[in-house]
Amino acid sequence: MFYFDSDYMVGAHPEVMERLTATNMLHTVGYQRDEFCDEAREKILEACGLQEGKVLFFVGGTQTNATVIDALLHRHEGVVAAETSHINVHEAGAIEASGHKVLTLPQHDGKIEATELELMIETFYRDESYSHMVAPGMVYISFPTELGTLYSLDELKAISSVCQKFDIPLYVDGARLAYGLAAHGNDVTLNDLAMLTDYFYIGGTKCGTLMGEALVSRHVDRVPYLYTLIKQHGALLAKGRLLGVQFNALFSEDLYSRIGQHAIAMAMRLKEGMEAKGVELMIDSPTNQQFFILPNTTIERLREIASFEYWGAPGPVKSVVRFVTDWSTTPEGVDAVINAV
Amino acid sequence: MFYFDSDYMVGAHPEVMERLTATNMLHTVGYQRDEFCDEAREKILEACGLQEGKVLFFVGGTQTNATVIDALLHRHEGVVAAETSHINVHEAGAIEASGHKVLTLPQHDGKIEATELELMIETFYRDESYSHMVAPGMVYISFPTELGTLYSLDELKAISSVCQKFDIPLYVDGARLAYGLAAHGNDVTLNDLAMLTDYFYIGGTKCGTLMGEALVSRHVDRVPYLYTLIKQHGALLAKGRLLGVQFNALFSEDLYSRIGQHAIAMAMRLKEGMEAKGVELMIDSPTNQQFFILPNTTIERLREIASFEYWGAPGPVKSVVRFVTDWSTTPEGVDAVINAV
Amino acid sequence: MFYFDSDYMVGAHPEVMERLTATNMLHTVGYQRDEFCDEAREKILEACGLQEGKVLFFVGGTQTNATVIDALLHRHEGVVAAETSHINVHEAGAIEASGHKVLTLPQHDGKIEATELELMIETFYRDESYSHMVAPGMVYISFPTELGTLYSLDELKAISSVCQKFDIPLYVDGARLAYGLAAHGNDVTLNDLAMLTDYFYIGGTKCGTLMGEALVSRHVDRVPYLYTLIKQHGALLAKGRLLGVQFNALFSEDLYSRIGQHAIAMAMRLKEGMEAKGVELMIDSPTNQQFFILPNTTIERLREIASFEYWGAPGPVKSVVRFVTDWSTTPEGVDAVINAV
Amino acid sequence: MFYFDSDYMVGAHPEVMERLTATNMLHTVGYQRDEFCDEAREKILEACGLQEGKVLFFVGGTQTNATVIDALLHRHEGVVAAETSHINVHEAGAIEASGHKVLTLPQHDGKIEATELELMIETFYRDESYSHMVAPGMVYISFPTELGTLYSLDELKAISSVCQKFDIPLYVDGARLAYGLAAHGNDVTLNDLAMLTDYFYIGGTKCGTLMGEALVSRHVDRVPYLYTLIKQHGALLAKGRLLGVQFNALFSEDLYSRIGQHAIAMAMRLKEGMEAKGVELMIDSPTNQQFFILPNTTIERLREIASFEYWGAPGPVKSVVRFVTDWSTTPEGVDAVINAV
Repeated sequence: MFYFDSDYMVGAHPEVMERLTATNMLHTVGYQRDEFCDEAREKILEACGLQEGKVLFFVGGTQTNATVIDALLHRHEGVVAAETSHINVHEAGAIEASGHKVLTLPQHDGKIEATELELMIETFYRDESYSHMVAPGMVYISFPTELGTLYSLDELKAISSVCQKFDIPLYVDGARLAYGLAAHGNDVTLNDLAMLTDYFYIGGTKCGTLMGEALVSRHVDRVPYLYTLIKQHGALLAKGRLLGVQFNALFSEDLYSRIGQHAIAMAMRLKEGMEAKGVELMIDSPTNQQFFILPNTTIERLREIASFEYWGAPGPVKSVVRFVTDWSTTPEGVDAVINAV
Repeated sequence: MFYFDSDYMVGAHPEVMERLTATNMLHTVGYQRDEFCDEAREKILEACGLQEGKVLFFVGGTQTNATVIDALLHRHEGVVAAETSHINVHEAGAIEASGHKVLTLPQHDGKIEATELELMIETFYRDESYSHMVAPGMVYISFPTELGTLYSLDELKAISSVCQKFDIPLYVDGARLAYGLAAHGNDVTLNDLAMLTDYFYIGGTKCGTLMGEALVSRHVDRVPYLYTLIKQHGALLAKGRLLGVQFNALFSEDLYSRIGQHAIAMAMRLKEGMEAKGVELMIDSPTNQQFFILPNTTIERLREIASFEYWGAPGPVKSVVRFVTDWSTTPEGVDAVINAV
Repeated sequence: MFYFDSDYMVGAHPEVMERLTATNMLHTVGYQRDEFCDEAREKILEACGLQEGKVLFFVGGTQTNATVIDALLHRHEGVVAAETSHINVHEAGAIEASGHKVLTLPQHDGKIEATELELMIETFYRDESYSHMVAPGMVYISFPTELGTLYSLDELKAISSVCQKFDIPLYVDGARLAYGLAAHGNDVTLNDLAMLTDYFYIGGTKCGTLMGEALVSRHVDRVPYLYTLIKQHGALLAKGRLLGVQFNALFSEDLYSRIGQHAIAMAMRLKEGMEAKGVELMIDSPTNQQFFILPNTTIERLREIASFEYWGAPGPVKSVVRFVTDWSTTPEGVDAVINAV
Repeated sequence: MFYFDSDYMVGAHPEVMERLTATNMLHTVGYQRDEFCDEAREKILEACGLQEGKVLFFVGGTQTNATVIDALLHRHEGVVAAETSHINVHEAGAIEASGHKVLTLPQHDGKIEATELELMIETFYRDESYSHMVAPGMVYISFPTELGTLYSLDELKAISSVCQKFDIPLYVDGARLAYGLAAHGNDVTLNDLAMLTDYFYIGGTKCGTLMGEALVSRHVDRVPYLYTLIKQHGALLAKGRLLGVQFNALFSEDLYSRIGQHAIAMAMRLKEGMEAKGVELMIDSPTNQQFFILPNTTIERLREIASFEYWGAPGPVKSVVRFVTDWSTTPEGVDAVINAV
């Protein structure tokens, strides 16, 4: 059986696991105040080209999003995001449970457009009733998006400009960041993300660690009580050093890049193989998530050798399925799928 | 100056005011446990054709919506509503502030469609990821809608059927109910609302009282702690008898109907007069809100004799403006506007 | 029957009612943006001796408290209050429903002590674990307290000093403010409240209006989005002018003072009469709430001529009962109660 | 250096780590729907003597508490807990952030008393104003308590009886459960907890795993949407199998008991050694947390060889310090501390 359900199906990358084992019996203080976390922070800031800044660790993506959005918004504000964004669809209402509305923009291949964002905010403030409405208080985008697509550097700059114009923070969900950075044609770097956003997170869970996400900001002290909010959101890991140790590994010997590159190589092999077989793409994704439109009969046959997920509800005749690669995907698995179509 | 900004621009209808004055010096217990509230409850249940049921009073619409929705939803559920619904647009995020997501459906002349509602819920439960998503836990519609339109009895029955099929409550916002009931062509009665919904409210603030809304349910004890939630939402008026006294007046000598009929007569006079002048309608509304598309120059001229609101942000050349009638609107005012176009 | 249950048992003071009637048919814009509200604001600021400041109107006390506390606290902070405070006991969890903890201090005759407050905050920041705890983010006191007692000017100054020392706002709940200002021996003025607090509210509902509270602050723009939060909390009255009209009346011809003085005269007459009869006081209250410890047999007898409330759960033999006076209380009623003991 | 700060200072117990390593490269589905979680569930139910029931995994204690309390309470209810309880003091307001009040009872050696609990609930419902107050909707206790003490089986039965009498759920926080079960004199078993509570959790983070808590209930389907609430609270680990694997290890070959027994042996060695040196105990704890009252000068000296925490804010001359043992504590470390006093 070959596994393409998602990028969280195995444990940690062996180099990460090795470090966890090597440090297992050491004693450290808790709650990410230990030296491993400090070391990881330094490496991450360096990788981002930041002289100073803030790095805080979380366990998973939903809690990172919910905590950061809660921290950045005032009570009367909502977060602007694509209608297809993870926070709008697949986080079980975590944002609203913290009291905030998700203000949706149309998605274009999973992305929002700077001009539509600008128009939305301008129109809001020109509406006489705006004080009865939820104010656009920050912008959320994901890189890569939930549909596997990427913002170009120009697109990112344009969105960042709009945010600066209206003085609202820009936050980027990087759950699958390694795969975005490594994608062919991508022109956005960690440094760009650090400089063009107010907060973004470097995904660990889906990119090589057991669990963990690293929130990065060029602002040292924008939300001084963010640490307490992490605790309040139940997101403060007692053995915080586990996150420090793992991110240390990810940012040593270029591991984060290598993980991204392998997954992208596998994803492109799959995409090209499927296209060669005449399989229809739902979307042209350059990253580790590939979406195929397949007859239900083909899907049934494929299930015998591979596991993968429906994207949305299945259709009566054809359905969209998602295949996800990661650092553990093998060429054999990819080829087996292609051959079975 | 003639006033068409909204239906909350004067005090109470004289017959309501008279009762408030007459009872002003009487002593009663507080928090709507007095005899006036009891009497109003009886009259309302009778008007709705309910042998038994629940009537609770609130001060305003936003707090009624927020409290009822909070009471009816479980924490993992959201409320389904039209994208143009008041709760989605003009309540400053009150629903989300209580922790709940508004799940939007497309609007068709301000209304949702039963078939789209059914498809949305069915698709939700057929999605493998539904336990990571906000469940559709109730349906909110407004009657009349925010665009002045009305559900026909058949449309209401169809929506009610879908709710029953999936065992989720249907709630109707009747902030302007008097104007819906009195509209020409309307075939929905108070009795229909009582039997086809789980909760609905009879608007007072915009229909003749100083303030106050009456929530009605055929369920005697569906949410036993609803009274406490009213307090928690800051919506429990200390001198609750003020609401009882006013709703007593509204449901005496057919006042609620008379208020509706007058406002509708004035609205139709305005609509027909404007149409005769060639003014373009944004929407064909049979109730007391009329939306006209006017050149900005005409708008400026009209402002000299009448007050009214832009609907949304104004446009560069033409804009949508809203004119609202109520029990205090006079034919002179209406004609003055028509003549000034 | 004579009524002492509370100070919300009749309608509005006749002078208030008269103004409501006189202005009933005038048209104004909604949501407290009308000229009556503006006029009331001016009168209130003048009565408080403020050259500039902010006055916003609410419908009732619980919603005022919930909204202001929500506006002033950051998400990681709680509000410090006496264990007997209204927000901690009798608001059905409205503060927590907005996400905030009430951090309690011991009560001394219903009041908190500045030294205990200071110690609490100091100890908090000396605790190594404080970032895992709810930070004291503001202070709530009521004047008069829930037990009818009053802070002296020195006590108020001392609490205000502590708040300034730690840079956290002080908020005063003045639901029964008229009765505090008029109490014999009281040395706190409106001006003192305005200068020593960040926000306080002048109670209308229990002091002469149908409903309504006026929030006052010497800060013009401390929370720029407070207006939107009022809407979000369902506390923004559509016909806001009703509040403006009523507060205009309260602050005309010294009405607010006269209301306070009458109720205090009645309360002292009752207190002295009861003491002369040997009735035990639960507490020595100088304001319009009087708490007596009476045998249950006496209570039963009194209920035949007067209505009043138990304070807490009744005891097996004796119970605490509360008698409340207001502007409508008559000497006949008071004497009837005294004679019946 | 010897480490007594807390029981989360090392990684996982070697037998746990071994299993994580051994299973690291296997593919499983996510979100605790894998076979390791299923296997762990079976073992846990068996260890609890439950034929059927529910076991769900969380990452940490605060999120477990916040999610379970949120799931069990209606919006108008609060959770009853000792004033010293973790949820009341050290979770940064996570319970209130979900909208719920913590209703405190006095603590007696960290515990609540059944008679006081019963009196509180009875008094609540005898209060005429109870519908304006937060209803006691569930009971939270911790075993061991935050002060290291234990409920006897009789005490637990008495509390459980009160909960049944008023039909409200009992929930037990077992963050340090291994150390309670293994304590000398303890007469409460896993089976007792399963039968006398509605929900309780078996702590992993502080008892041998990298992270993870196992929530157990004899009710199969009391809160059908609990899984979605775990997601909403950001507590659903993507690689859920990590929790299954670790709890599998804890409940294999009696590891959970062995871990408890070792830590207790070390704690008793420390306690007895300190007492022999004349050190004053803050409380007589039979579990792995020991609280000593020491002169500040002694504390300074001890810090040279051992790390440990202040309990609360330090005093001017003497302070309370907490020493915590776990499976990694060595007799050498314990003896070094004793000798250094």
